[in-house]
Amino acid sequence: MEVAKTIEEIRSLIKKARSNGKTIGLVPTMGALHIGHISLIKAAAEKTDFVVVSIFVNPIQFGPSEDFDKYPRPFEQDLQICQDNSVNLVFAPSSDEMYGRENLTWVDVDKLTEPLCGRSRPDHFRGVTTVCAKLFNIVLPDIAFFGQKDAQQAIVIERMVADLNMPLDIIVCPTVREEDGLAVSSRNKYLNESERKDAPLIYEALQKAQSMVASGTKETQQILDEMRKILNRSKLIEPEYVEIVDTETLQPTGTAEGKLLIAIAAKLGSARLIDNITVDASKD
Amino acid sequence: MEVAKTIEEIRSLIKKARSNGKTIGLVPTMGALHIGHISLIKAAAEKTDFVVVSIFVNPIQFGPSEDFDKYPRPFEQDLQICQDNSVNLVFAPSSDEMYGRENLTWVDVDKLTEPLCGRSRPDHFRGVTTVCAKLFNIVLPDIAFFGQKDAQQAIVIERMVADLNMPLDIIVCPTVREEDGLAVSSRNKYLNESERKDAPLIYEALQKAQSMVASGTKETQQILDEMRKILNRSKLIEPEYVEIVDTETLQPTGTAEGKLLIAIAAKLGSARLIDNITVDASKD
Repeated sequence: MEVAKTIEEIRSLIKKARSNGKTIGLVPTMGALHIGHISLIKAAAEKTDFVVVSIFVNPIQFGPSEDFDKYPRPFEQDLQICQDNSVNLVFAPSSDEMYGRENLTWVDVDKLTEPLCGRSRPDHFRGVTTVCAKLFNIVLPDIAFFGQKDAQQAIVIERMVADLNMPLDIIVCPTVREEDGLAVSSRNKYLNESERKDAPLIYEALQKAQSMVASGTKETQQILDEMRKILNRSKLIEPEYVEIVDTETLQPTGTAEGKLLIAIAAKLGSARLIDNITVDASKD
Repeated sequence: MEVAKTIEEIRSLIKKARSNGKTIGLVPTMGALHIGHISLIKAAAEKTDFVVVSIFVNPIQFGPSEDFDKYPRPFEQDLQICQDNSVNLVFAPSSDEMYGRENLTWVDVDKLTEPLCGRSRPDHFRGVTTVCAKLFNIVLPDIAFFGQKDAQQAIVIERMVADLNMPLDIIVCPTVREEDGLAVSSRNKYLNESERKDAPLIYEALQKAQSMVASGTKETQQILDEMRKILNRSKLIEPEYVEIVDTETLQPTGTAEGKLLIAIAAKLGSARLIDNITVDASKD
């Protein structure tokens, strides 16, 4: 496994792999790798010949009051995980390497970035799309892999790739969960013992919604009420949003019809957790 | 010469050229080709093996009151010019092919798009950068060629490419002029006889500025005054701006020092013409 720290280095290593006829898979991460990331790496190894993992805590996707400084950076451990999972190349640039000169150029996706997490994190998604555009242009992957846990991010990136005709495919991999249902996330590290104990209620609320849709409930307000009841069983969970939206537009829907994204964001102590489930309400 | 109308077609033709080891040069145009474009095509043929000319009147770079509808579209004549100049491939997509679904994604370059033409054309440059990002992603050129006549556009595109790490080079080619100095432009067609007769005063004003800088004038206000005097010799010329700015920041400079862009935009009848000159005032 090679580790490139500069854009020049990675470009030359990618060029070599490419000239050997290999297809390139990219797993963009902020490090603090966990079994969720490992599932993306495995998907990449299955679909492509040469797996690149980028590790970069991207400053421009954090708001001024967010956790950029305290975001975990266990770099040696991350490299070990990459090594153990047969990653071919790690790209770990410095902020200076990525944004050496003042960055003036932004990739903005309208509309899809406004609801859900966009409301509390107004500049988050332009930070994500901009860094992904940069990473895609540097690595030139055939396929990039993202997790369903960050559903809105995945939808925004898919739209960016389609709108700008970027020459790659996006594969979104299923959310990986702890045994009790909690979606695996680097931010779970911020939970204390009692917060960790209550955290699975988020997934329980999502499952309740799923089963209500499956059993034919059409009024989304009724489903949202049941979801909130479950979250309210914990005094530690402060919901930021509980929503049922169309997967294409991310706009709330009053009636459970078509493809739906059911999504929750909640604060637990200092952690902000998100989770979601998609259901197809057009199916019987 | 082949003509591709769809993204799928051009991608397959580019892939074939690429697999034959050819380097790709792109000349993005809105058609209405003239000797300025031909100079770009010639530069592309000199620097790359396979020259692609895109012909697309890009709706999203025109303001609501601008000349999108009346912009000239002499398509057969454009094809002939490409043929005569040994272009390998013309890409002439429909608006539907380029923006089939509602476009939500924009590439925005801050700061550099605000002064000069940005003031009167507030959404122009985001339309240009967005379509260029799309064209670059579709054609994947090694080098794209732009004209110095649209100096701000060239500087904005160079910045976008650098900031987003786009894997291509930009070459900016000198402005081509008529015998009397008027910069060649598709919009010169809009000039009536008397407007056409006065139009060279724009270049005369730029030349005056150049010679004043060369002879050591440091106060830009003094230079701007002389430029306006020359433009005022015509009753048909309505200057929109007359400016001396730093070529890096595009901000006005009070003292003629370093690399300067001296730029004019003016209305003549229904035509809006722009022209510019760069000078290096750090040289003796």
